[in-house]
Amino acid sequence: MKKPLKLGIAGLGTVGSSTARIVTSQAEELTLRAGRPMQLTAVCTRSRTSNKDRGIDLSGYTWFDDPVALATSDEIDVFVELIGGDGGPAYASVLAALKAGKHVVTANKALIAAHGNELALAAEAAGVSLVFEAAVAGGIPIIKALREGMAGNSVSRVYGIMNGTCNYILTRMENEGLDFETCLKQAQELGYAEADPAFDIEGNDTAHKLAILTSLAFGTRIESSSIYMEGITSITSADIDAADELGYRIKLLGVSVKTDTGIEQRVHPTMVPKDANIAQISGVTNAVVIDGDAVGSIMLSGPGAGGDATASAVVADIVDIARDLSLPVFGRPAATLAPYVRSKMRTHAGGYYIRLSVLDRPGAFAAIAKRMGDEGISLESIVQKRRVGSDAESGNEPGPATVMLITHETTEKAIRAALDAINADGHIAAQPQMIRIER
Amino acid sequence: MKKPLKLGIAGLGTVGSSTARIVTSQAEELTLRAGRPMQLTAVCTRSRTSNKDRGIDLSGYTWFDDPVALATSDEIDVFVELIGGDGGPAYASVLAALKAGKHVVTANKALIAAHGNELALAAEAAGVSLVFEAAVAGGIPIIKALREGMAGNSVSRVYGIMNGTCNYILTRMENEGLDFETCLKQAQELGYAEADPAFDIEGNDTAHKLAILTSLAFGTRIESSSIYMEGITSITSADIDAADELGYRIKLLGVSVKTDTGIEQRVHPTMVPKDANIAQISGVTNAVVIDGDAVGSIMLSGPGAGGDATASAVVADIVDIARDLSLPVFGRPAATLAPYVRSKMRTHAGGYYIRLSVLDRPGAFAAIAKRMGDEGISLESIVQKRRVGSDAESGNEPGPATVMLITHETTEKAIRAALDAINADGHIAAQPQMIRIER
Repeated sequence: MKKPLKLGIAGLGTVGSSTARIVTSQAEELTLRAGRPMQLTAVCTRSRTSNKDRGIDLSGYTWFDDPVALATSDEIDVFVELIGGDGGPAYASVLAALKAGKHVVTANKALIAAHGNELALAAEAAGVSLVFEAAVAGGIPIIKALREGMAGNSVSRVYGIMNGTCNYILTRMENEGLDFETCLKQAQELGYAEADPAFDIEGNDTAHKLAILTSLAFGTRIESSSIYMEGITSITSADIDAADELGYRIKLLGVSVKTDTGIEQRVHPTMVPKDANIAQISGVTNAVVIDGDAVGSIMLSGPGAGGDATASAVVADIVDIARDLSLPVFGRPAATLAPYVRSKMRTHAGGYYIRLSVLDRPGAFAAIAKRMGDEGISLESIVQKRRVGSDAESGNEPGPATVMLITHETTEKAIRAALDAINADGHIAAQPQMIRIER
Repeated sequence: MKKPLKLGIAGLGTVGSSTARIVTSQAEELTLRAGRPMQLTAVCTRSRTSNKDRGIDLSGYTWFDDPVALATSDEIDVFVELIGGDGGPAYASVLAALKAGKHVVTANKALIAAHGNELALAAEAAGVSLVFEAAVAGGIPIIKALREGMAGNSVSRVYGIMNGTCNYILTRMENEGLDFETCLKQAQELGYAEADPAFDIEGNDTAHKLAILTSLAFGTRIESSSIYMEGITSITSADIDAADELGYRIKLLGVSVKTDTGIEQRVHPTMVPKDANIAQISGVTNAVVIDGDAVGSIMLSGPGAGGDATASAVVADIVDIARDLSLPVFGRPAATLAPYVRSKMRTHAGGYYIRLSVLDRPGAFAAIAKRMGDEGISLESIVQKRRVGSDAESGNEPGPATVMLITHETTEKAIRAALDAINADGHIAAQPQMIRIER
């Protein structure tokens, strides 16, 4: 039997506590699986003196106040970073650990999205592992699937639902007919959304995860600063209803796809056909789809957050290290990762859903149709809704009509140009809504 | 750069040809991923002289007529067994390869289900890898997910749709309202079913795959001979319609679940709630669900067969070997695998769907209800269908009525006893249909 693998955990929130609990309570099983014991030896947390119940007695371990001191301590072989944040102590301690020759396990998507290239080079220079299965889609082993399971494939696209908060809100809106604000409030009450929800609902969280998947899928340097991003705050019940009527559901997807000009990374509300597997993913569940040339399309789904589910991924990474599984951080040596070449959003090709609030004027719809035609956009379906407030007897001017369009495949540039022209024509009562379709 | 990993492929059907094509055409990418080149050096096939187009020119490789000779050849480091069959040349050559210190990659579920314990011991004694990702659910990396991704979990259940032929037939029956025979014939015409379909439709193929998942999930020695098995031949359009009406779909599942008395391995048509993720898996697609104590429930879905999809898994296994990933065959040393203790089918607990053809006699339904009650079975729903051939004016005796029941959780023993008693009472016109429910 090899000597024990000594673990130091920095950050004892829900994930850190669950991780500590699993490695101690499942010690015998884990030893069988890994071929050597794993031993929690030291911890680091800001709230050392607090009495909060972590579900495990940590009094027997060496306590550190400074994560960098833990990261470089002789008492550990593996530094488990569960502090969070893309800089500060998380960055400093992870870099220090790698330079000190410690393996690093982290659940920190923001850190990897921001500093993944540098940290990968540091890990590979030191000959240690830097692993982060828990950083994307919680308990779903999507990084292992991409880095190892898909190794025989040339990946053309990877996309998924990677933010449980957004998917919970969109699912509630769809199932209960509630508006966005109400569902956000309920998500906050249930602990599915933060008091300041911007990071989730604006798409940043998804973008961080997407940047990691992109690098693994396409062998490119990680690049999270140039991801096209739209959140879900502009999605209304009318859009949800229209999607339903037209045979779609609305999901916040992160999508990374190889195009002729580079790689398109985008996060936005997306219409997906109701019969697509990804359309079935409801509530806080996450799912990621990988399209590969050999395998076709596979999907992994499961819990994307939660202490135990995330700790499941952290422990799997620890077991991999104990088993001496050592792979390049992004599936190939970091020095050989290709520069990320951004495919510009205006060349994006796909179908679009457009919702317009059209004023009741002769020729208004003809003008709109002409603008679409001018840009070479052809329409798959058109739905016009009864006018709101339309009442001839009241003597009021009829309200605008809602017109919903689904286009055949076109480009972002064409759609933008058509909508700008439609706006300029002045026949519409509000800014057009536009949602991309993913098949 | 490490020296090339030399591959020998035995069996050049669709999977073997795809594997050869990927390792040669993707050589550069694979080298980057694996950190060393992979080199196909030798092949073995029965039809060496045939001119069939394999999509790759194999004339430059050493040809063997005898797989055992290839398996033990100095020209190879890895023996890729794609011959098939649970004995004969597949077994002989894999065992010979392991004993000669060659790594083995195989897609052969029958071989692993029958001889997995012995082969795992041989591989671990020789210090080489024996890997078979392609043996279960084709291109879906389910074995890696169980063996590595779920390493931090105690698994309570693993189940899935692992036979595309059966799922295709059941999906067609459901979507088109066709009967079993018609759908089987169509599946045969499309190449989704063999000329002799028994192995698929009777459940044997699923049972082999389930035996492999059971061993990985529960750390037990592989045991495929005592799996409870029912095929899909008895499923009628009436059952499909009833399932739909009651909120279920019918899928052929392989289920392995830990119980108080051991492990239950069973393959049978199963009613799954329509809103369950597994219920969305249609056509030839496969899906496997893992329930773990930390992660909760995750599902992997994708193509379960096909040359390229299966080769994707074979190549991923080869890349793992090239990367020096060496793990115990079933996730822990074969010598430490626990004996398989069978949980008897009569102790199986769950809900049941029962379809009865009840004769039009006073008290018939009361007698049936009493038999259920006598066994402590309570009913969740009851649907009685219009009698077939019921026509008072014709003077004919009314035909039997179809009665469909869904029970609350009960046991197999209770259901069997109730149905035996109902049979003995003589109020039914045909053998009862019984389908288990999985939630």
